[in-house]
Amino acid sequence: MTRIVEGIAASAGIAIAKAFILKVPDFAIEKRNVENGEQEADRLIAALEKTKRELEAIKKQAQAELGEDKANIFAAHLLVLEDPEFIGPIQDKIRNEHVNAEYAVRETADMFIALFEQMDNEYMKERAADIRDVTRRILARLLGVTLADVRTIAEEVIIVAEDLTPSDTAQLDRRYVKGFTTDIGGRTSHSAIMARSLEIPAVVGTKHATEMIEQDSWIIIDGMEGKVLIHPTEQEIQEYKERQAGYEAQRAGWAKLAHEATVTKDGAHIEVAANIGTPDDIASVLSNGAEGVGLYRTEFLYMGRDQLPTEEEQVDAYKTVLERMEGKPVVIRTLDIGGDKELSYLSLPKELNPFLGLRAIRLCLDMEEVFRTQLRALLKASPFGNLKIMFPMIATLDEFRQAKRLLLSEKEKLEAEGVTVSSDLEVGIMVEIPAAALLADVLAKEVDFFSIGTNDLIQYTMAADRMNEKVAHLYQPYHPAILRLVNMVVQAAHKEGKWVGMCGEMAGEPAAIPLLLGLGLDELSMSASSILPARSRLKQLSKTEARAHAEKAMKMESAEEVFRYVSETFRTLETMK
Amino acid sequence: MTRIVEGIAASAGIAIAKAFILKVPDFAIEKRNVENGEQEADRLIAALEKTKRELEAIKKQAQAELGEDKANIFAAHLLVLEDPEFIGPIQDKIRNEHVNAEYAVRETADMFIALFEQMDNEYMKERAADIRDVTRRILARLLGVTLADVRTIAEEVIIVAEDLTPSDTAQLDRRYVKGFTTDIGGRTSHSAIMARSLEIPAVVGTKHATEMIEQDSWIIIDGMEGKVLIHPTEQEIQEYKERQAGYEAQRAGWAKLAHEATVTKDGAHIEVAANIGTPDDIASVLSNGAEGVGLYRTEFLYMGRDQLPTEEEQVDAYKTVLERMEGKPVVIRTLDIGGDKELSYLSLPKELNPFLGLRAIRLCLDMEEVFRTQLRALLKASPFGNLKIMFPMIATLDEFRQAKRLLLSEKEKLEAEGVTVSSDLEVGIMVEIPAAALLADVLAKEVDFFSIGTNDLIQYTMAADRMNEKVAHLYQPYHPAILRLVNMVVQAAHKEGKWVGMCGEMAGEPAAIPLLLGLGLDELSMSASSILPARSRLKQLSKTEARAHAEKAMKMESAEEVFRYVSETFRTLETMK
Repeated sequence: MTRIVEGIAASAGIAIAKAFILKVPDFAIEKRNVENGEQEADRLIAALEKTKRELEAIKKQAQAELGEDKANIFAAHLLVLEDPEFIGPIQDKIRNEHVNAEYAVRETADMFIALFEQMDNEYMKERAADIRDVTRRILARLLGVTLADVRTIAEEVIIVAEDLTPSDTAQLDRRYVKGFTTDIGGRTSHSAIMARSLEIPAVVGTKHATEMIEQDSWIIIDGMEGKVLIHPTEQEIQEYKERQAGYEAQRAGWAKLAHEATVTKDGAHIEVAANIGTPDDIASVLSNGAEGVGLYRTEFLYMGRDQLPTEEEQVDAYKTVLERMEGKPVVIRTLDIGGDKELSYLSLPKELNPFLGLRAIRLCLDMEEVFRTQLRALLKASPFGNLKIMFPMIATLDEFRQAKRLLLSEKEKLEAEGVTVSSDLEVGIMVEIPAAALLADVLAKEVDFFSIGTNDLIQYTMAADRMNEKVAHLYQPYHPAILRLVNMVVQAAHKEGKWVGMCGEMAGEPAAIPLLLGLGLDELSMSASSILPARSRLKQLSKTEARAHAEKAMKMESAEEVFRYVSETFRTLETMK
Repeated sequence: MTRIVEGIAASAGIAIAKAFILKVPDFAIEKRNVENGEQEADRLIAALEKTKRELEAIKKQAQAELGEDKANIFAAHLLVLEDPEFIGPIQDKIRNEHVNAEYAVRETADMFIALFEQMDNEYMKERAADIRDVTRRILARLLGVTLADVRTIAEEVIIVAEDLTPSDTAQLDRRYVKGFTTDIGGRTSHSAIMARSLEIPAVVGTKHATEMIEQDSWIIIDGMEGKVLIHPTEQEIQEYKERQAGYEAQRAGWAKLAHEATVTKDGAHIEVAANIGTPDDIASVLSNGAEGVGLYRTEFLYMGRDQLPTEEEQVDAYKTVLERMEGKPVVIRTLDIGGDKELSYLSLPKELNPFLGLRAIRLCLDMEEVFRTQLRALLKASPFGNLKIMFPMIATLDEFRQAKRLLLSEKEKLEAEGVTVSSDLEVGIMVEIPAAALLADVLAKEVDFFSIGTNDLIQYTMAADRMNEKVAHLYQPYHPAILRLVNMVVQAAHKEGKWVGMCGEMAGEPAAIPLLLGLGLDELSMSASSILPARSRLKQLSKTEARAHAEKAMKMESAEEVFRYVSETFRTLETMK
């Protein structure tokens, strides 16, 4: 009989294939007393050296086959392997406590993993995943165990694992891996994000799937409903093949829209753009027919390394994106670190409330040289495409003026040196602090454009940390206060003839799109995989009608009332997950 | 020759008297090895016991002479003395490391003090001050040293000290202590707050005053300019006596206003009310002629103890305040903990951004029984005066409805039990989250009143932690966005015939008062010592003219522009510090 396991729908689509159980070898480790601590420390050194060579080989292969972005995962792992703050305590433990190397590695790693995971911070959680991944390799070397290798898969399978590490997902071959399911994880866990970016159906957080599924048994992954069917009947397989075909047809329908402009029923054009983190994301941006890049998060250039990127590295990255977008608009956001994003090599102050602290433009104005380097790199790259520069976390007109002054001063210097710089560079700001939204009429006179960052704007307007599950119920994108702020910004901008985009999560949410159209946004920037569904939805809407609905929603009492209203009003549109 | 030391003006007024140097005895402590750890631990126990008896005696005396509020400082110290989390590590250190008790006390105390101080949190900083204070007593006992005792002062003096501990300030006798100056501290340090509440002139943060001033030498404290004059000339003494007389005359002029209503030149009445923390504050509220209590912060009832206050304790406190205010309005705010205010006996979750976390009403709705107890106590006290209940940190209409439902359910229960409950109880909310301000029109239909909490409202609107000095420049009360939000709330409330107050720091700021009058606030609630200057200022203003200025300010570009404008426009009004 078919058994059904419920999990979290992490990546849309249906997969039907045999299970490939990716087992982590049994790393049951006993604490042993070793007499000769030095000798045991040497065993560790040897294992570290072998792991290093292994990682270097994988990194090289990844660079060649998967691109720089994926290869960076392994570069980060090599950094962990050479980090004295990680390796030092392991060696001390072996020498001082006379314990076996395996035990010392496991204890130290667990301590760091627990520390980083409890930080409730995406970037640090990724560091925890990196340490887990590297630890697994070191332990395999110490114990003489062979790790399962996803690169050996050469037939169509669905991977079933407790969890997938960053190095597992980096090496998945989409030709063979049709989907995956994991026991742990949520919609924002590393494996879920990777599944969506690879466009592989996935169900995560099933808790017990690995225990219930045997190697090579047939299973179905339903990435829309969050279900895993084990030993499905012929009838179920037939039924799911039809659903799969339906989903594929919908996708194919969307795919046809890849080269169309986004125009509503009543002829309004909305620019549907993509959010990216690295130049490697451009392939998917282009294949999904984005009309531009609405948000390039440059902080990834600064992360997972042990020093600041040079001006040249930055010019390279920006230029690559601009050139590959072939004249389409590319909005590059200047460095947004601080808050939940730390950089180990800049010793940023610890803060009691980092989200209300020294972040983004505040930090950049404080570290002028770091900022000037980025501005120079942006200016040097500017002639290679349609660049727009955007400053994050602006709360006052003065901050914008200061930032722009630095930009102009670097521009003058470069021009004096004879360097070509684009002459029609737009300079805008993120509107993500309530004060900026409330003062949009004043700001609109000086900026070239606004892009509303809903993630932070909602968090501050509701005074609810978006990463704190205790107040998750108060993180309300549909709260009428948020709609009113968005409306205020759009009206103020249009009065001055400036354009307004939105680049928070909300911009890609199917239920929000009719409201955003009605509120008058000129551009919506989202993850590449949401672009075609959004375009399809927008083409079925009328902007005039949407305006009337938005007006109504802004007068409502609560987020629930707004959400119910849009869900019921636009129910007839195709479902999109 | 006169020497002048610059410091921070912490409390207004001029004092001219001889210096009384309050020296902390030399607690130079050497680390010694003790052979018998148990015997050394016994020495500690004896010292703790003696300190306990000493503190109990002081507490009793404080209760009799200074009231419950001051006595609570010593109750908190007794808690520290009996806290196993503080005493345990000291004992372990003595027993395990075989060190002398003095050393173990100092090391452990320093560790906790550093920990609490770096928390950048007023409540925890007070805990650090408590530990410092208690440690000083324990060390004095261990070393056989006698501490200087401010209670022995019996002639007019100005106290000169490195710092004043909470127990020092609690025992100051205003008849003799004419002023004080300390080497460390800022405007919000414990000693500065105490000076303002005792209305004693004070200059803090002088860095070197204790080194420069000798016992019994004449000094002058200028609490307006933040200066200390050492060995002043006859002429200087004369000059400062005149200034002192001028200041006293101004105060006397204000004092005449104590029994007047606050009416502007053009006949508008503004209610000037006081913020209080405990029933003991009422004496000063009455002597300063407050027209009501605009904010009673009930959380102090819950702090500095090891369990929740009982319903009866709460009824007592609320009843006392209501009775003593003799029918004048008393706005009692329900429990506002979480954020920077912790209660050790409720194990609240650690949060990454506590200001954006589970605080105030959010926490109360989560701990329904704690909240219901407080609501019952408020209802039981309600017939004894003019009570208005206020919920803090409301972000959605739903939260207000939930809180009000609990209030009504407790009311019904009490009435069923035959308990008398006031029948015309107003129920309102703090507006301190941008979402509430933006949705004020909707909320105004259901609440009886609003009170704008500017401290938090500014912090969220600007996304700048008000306790983080790195972003202090962004905590801008005069930002046009703040004025616009305040205006929005007032307009929405008045449209529904509801009144609006303000109970943040801003309400008592001389420079802000003309703007707040112009924005249409019906009530301003501030610390008692600001009431008469505020009334004096309001009586010199015209509401119609103030409205025109406020309209202008709301259209300005920046906080600097607004501040400059009000400073220049209202320069002719008397100076108030």
